[in-house]
Amino acid sequence: MEPVHDRFPEPPYYAVIFTSHRTEDDNDYQATAERMLELAAEQPGFLGVDSAREGPELGITVSYWRDEDSIAGWRAHAEHTLARRSGRRQWYEAFEVHVARVERNYGFRRQ
Amino acid sequence: MEPVHDRFPEPPYYAVIFTSHRTEDDNDYQATAERMLELAAEQPGFLGVDSAREGPELGITVSYWRDEDSIAGWRAHAEHTLARRSGRRQWYEAFEVHVARVERNYGFRRQ
Repeated sequence: MEPVHDRFPEPPYYAVIFTSHRTEDDNDYQATAERMLELAAEQPGFLGVDSAREGPELGITVSYWRDEDSIAGWRAHAEHTLARRSGRRQWYEAFEVHVARVERNYGFRRQ
Repeated sequence: MEPVHDRFPEPPYYAVIFTSHRTEDDNDYQATAERMLELAAEQPGFLGVDSAREGPELGITVSYWRDEDSIAGWRAHAEHTLARRSGRRQWYEAFEVHVARVERNYGFRRQ
């Protein structure tokens, strides 16, 4: 982890919190998930992403964006749109998305 | 996972995104982490929490709160204050906190 102030600009910026429960269907899931992380990182306004999964029942991916326009741009990306369709069709039992405006941040790093 | 609209009120509400890199020191960490999740759930304005860890380098805990006052109340809780002190002293190499105002949410659940 980099220090928070190296990774992020001054607030406000945006966080998209994606919480998911996976199916057992692994058909291309892993490759697509990795591709989406790479592709997201190339989008205008992308600030960072963290992703952790604890078993099929709970995965959390938080991506950070400069503004709402950056989020809308990524959402409209053709390959991402297709991946989301596959997600609903086969990879997810359930998911939640929270779009949130970061008001402040702070961090700690051991010396 | 419950459907998002069962778990949460209409936005706006708040998300506290805690991203952490652990040390190898396990002295009471697990018990304290579980106790903090239980205790948080008893606080006024608490809406929910999700937590996933992928190895020591990355854990993500997102807690959701009714408003900024609820977050401040939990932050001032004596036992939580002590736990945060132990976190800086022994359990974390680094962490980041983002406090964000949820503007909208949506979800999906397989039929």
